[in-house]
Amino acid sequence: MGGTKSYICLATPNGESLAEAKIPTPARDTPERFFELVFSEIRKMLPDRGLDPGRMDGIGFGFPGVVDETAGIVTNAPALSWPAIDVRPLIQAHFGGTVVLDNDVNFAALGEQALGAAQGKKHFAMITVGTGIGGALYLNGQPYKGSRFSAGEAGYMVVGGGVGPEVHAGDEEGRDTSFGALENVTSGEGIGSAAREYFGQRRGFSAILTAVDNRIDRIGAVHVLDAAAHGDEAALHIMVKPLEHMAMAIANIVSLLNPELVVIGGGVASSHPYYVSELRLRVKRFTPIPANIVVAQLGNRAGAIGAIVAVRNKLAATTSA
Amino acid sequence: MGGTKSYICLATPNGESLAEAKIPTPARDTPERFFELVFSEIRKMLPDRGLDPGRMDGIGFGFPGVVDETAGIVTNAPALSWPAIDVRPLIQAHFGGTVVLDNDVNFAALGEQALGAAQGKKHFAMITVGTGIGGALYLNGQPYKGSRFSAGEAGYMVVGGGVGPEVHAGDEEGRDTSFGALENVTSGEGIGSAAREYFGQRRGFSAILTAVDNRIDRIGAVHVLDAAAHGDEAALHIMVKPLEHMAMAIANIVSLLNPELVVIGGGVASSHPYYVSELRLRVKRFTPIPANIVVAQLGNRAGAIGAIVAVRNKLAATTSA
Repeated sequence: MGGTKSYICLATPNGESLAEAKIPTPARDTPERFFELVFSEIRKMLPDRGLDPGRMDGIGFGFPGVVDETAGIVTNAPALSWPAIDVRPLIQAHFGGTVVLDNDVNFAALGEQALGAAQGKKHFAMITVGTGIGGALYLNGQPYKGSRFSAGEAGYMVVGGGVGPEVHAGDEEGRDTSFGALENVTSGEGIGSAAREYFGQRRGFSAILTAVDNRIDRIGAVHVLDAAAHGDEAALHIMVKPLEHMAMAIANIVSLLNPELVVIGGGVASSHPYYVSELRLRVKRFTPIPANIVVAQLGNRAGAIGAIVAVRNKLAATTSA
Repeated sequence: MGGTKSYICLATPNGESLAEAKIPTPARDTPERFFELVFSEIRKMLPDRGLDPGRMDGIGFGFPGVVDETAGIVTNAPALSWPAIDVRPLIQAHFGGTVVLDNDVNFAALGEQALGAAQGKKHFAMITVGTGIGGALYLNGQPYKGSRFSAGEAGYMVVGGGVGPEVHAGDEEGRDTSFGALENVTSGEGIGSAAREYFGQRRGFSAILTAVDNRIDRIGAVHVLDAAAHGDEAALHIMVKPLEHMAMAIANIVSLLNPELVVIGGGVASSHPYYVSELRLRVKRFTPIPANIVVAQLGNRAGAIGAIVAVRNKLAATTSA
């Protein structure tokens, strides 16, 4: 489930994909509506492929937020306007089999571990750079969720920013707003908004402006990356802070966890080899601990593939228990 | 094993301490010499307490560095000048039983989990603030070492520091030296050196200067913390950066790992309740994920207690296998 689109994959217990579909996510609607749309799509997909709806064993849902799997509650999901309710009864209204609920990036990491960039790895972190920043950890050969299911939330990390003796005002909850959390600076949103601010204050030629026909409000992260990959000066300047902050965050993850691999996914990061090769150079400056930084291989399908792996694992555990 | 002193604890398999001793660490001498001194001390301690040297089942060594337990090699130990050699034969020359080698803070975390501040916890991080910065992770009910035994090395984390478009020079290995790693800013060494620099540039009254009889070169972290705890203005000013950077690093650990607890140990952190209460206030500003921050309970003995736990676990695993 993404903020704008959701991806459905029907697969055999062996992970062989039988049918795939994309539906628009009704992000501002109720969870009831979302599950109605998903199951109505599944009911269409199954008979189309000669499949019997009664034979579906399990289903996995990956949500863009923190998923408390013991309570069935999705929180910290800025893309959704869902209440903090147990969504399992809403699913059971449509389906009586095995259900797995998890964070979308946790599923993507499981997918990359099974069939993608992290095959055979026991220790890795996954960071997705898209509209927002996502993260997941896979440690000692299994997904690591932390004590309350929020492990991997790299977007909240703080790096950079000046530190002085002044008292910081903070937001209503007393949190400091003068230090942008990693997500504010390094996400697609953050890069786009930094670029719009940059051109709001300056004139001059840039491939970014050409790409958007000089309409500054249309600049997005992908225009900046496109231009930076071709050496555009303004774009290179705009990318310094997002790249430095992401490199520091990744270096901190490497220093702290000593993973074999850091897998970088998400639309922004995958748009150009430029992004990850710049990151690699910068991360080395910030940690003496070596780690490979690689690009995710499964794209949008990673989450769906991970959901299938998770359902299969749960079915196997249930059968053997 | 510490940089200046090493702590020896003889205990029963149940963890009951029978005898304890402190010896000076010959830090600039060879590893051979260190093990000679340790075993000569043990040989004195045993018969003194009516114990039979032949009945010692196992011994655990905690080193101030990254310990590759599969190769027996201690690296990244700035306090020692040891070569990267397998130390196990040097131990076997004195003792033929079960040997466990680990990082000192990993052992301290095991000790705090067994008998101290983290009793019964399954997910926590431990950070020690002493002369240097140490760290260890305990995840899913077991010590987490990462892929190459260096997990928990929080001292390498980078937070704070300005980020600009200029190219950073870096050190010989291309690492950035303009961003102090966490250890440079927040360790006892870092705090002491910041204070000496502060008074090298300024005059005026401060409880810090009184404590050292105006001899600036004698200022250490403990003088700064003493004075800060009593509201001394210069001391509060000097502590802002070490506290802010440590708070950001802990917040990043909390955002990334979602632990139940962060245990703060080490001489500097334990010298005043001021230190941890200031940290608690600041960490909240940098992460929305809640976590308890508590003071370690076992002091210098934590590592020795953890070593006993580790030896007992290894003996149990060997017996049952």
